[in-house]
Amino acid sequence: MDATDKVRLADKFARFDDHWHPRIVGQVNDMHVKVARLLGTFDWHVHDDEDELFLVHRGSLLIRLRDRDVRIDEGEFFIVPRGVEHQPVAEEEVELVLIEPVGTVNTGNAESDRTLRDLEWI
Amino acid sequence: MDATDKVRLADKFARFDDHWHPRIVGQVNDMHVKVARLLGTFDWHVHDDEDELFLVHRGSLLIRLRDRDVRIDEGEFFIVPRGVEHQPVAEEEVELVLIEPVGTVNTGNAESDRTLRDLEWI
Repeated sequence: MDATDKVRLADKFARFDDHWHPRIVGQVNDMHVKVARLLGTFDWHVHDDEDELFLVHRGSLLIRLRDRDVRIDEGEFFIVPRGVEHQPVAEEEVELVLIEPVGTVNTGNAESDRTLRDLEWI
Repeated sequence: MDATDKVRLADKFARFDDHWHPRIVGQVNDMHVKVARLLGTFDWHVHDDEDELFLVHRGSLLIRLRDRDVRIDEGEFFIVPRGVEHQPVAEEEVELVLIEPVGTVNTGNAESDRTLRDLEWI
């Protein structure tokens, strides 16, 4: 594989404005780097086999776990290990970078009308 | 594995001041998240089996490839694919986040007195 171009995150976020719809912006080994805009409350779900890294690019994200809440602000990341139920909550809009294995489905075990597969690259 | 604490990148960078010495700050699946301070010119090297993601937290990093230079500023990342020779150059100090497979050695194929193994977690 040849080296591709660098990615300026702000440019990628400028290319869409819908929520809870991740786009792929890179692949590093067997992991995808995704960007998503979040607003509101997502579904509780769990990924049985994948850890998921949440890095906040802009805004403040609340991740509810069953035993506590974790607040992630700009310049912070949090890794939700496989098997841990979680619910992302964005009281105001959040620009999020996600790093997770290729093929990870956004809603994990909780199939719903928010489930997205075959994400596009931008 | 239980969920660990969130990571505030600025807090991690505040914990050390030496250069070209990455520390581990997270693991997501089979990848380590590392932080490093860079200053000056590193050795040309290649990782035969690992892609490497460089995300600039502060400063401006030049990555020389054999056929071009790539400049990465704050809020930008660049993925060096396995097999691609590269040389990081930091004219002024850079705070860098690295995401790469567990066990990736900083100098790749170019063993030197800068080679570091068994990195510590902070």
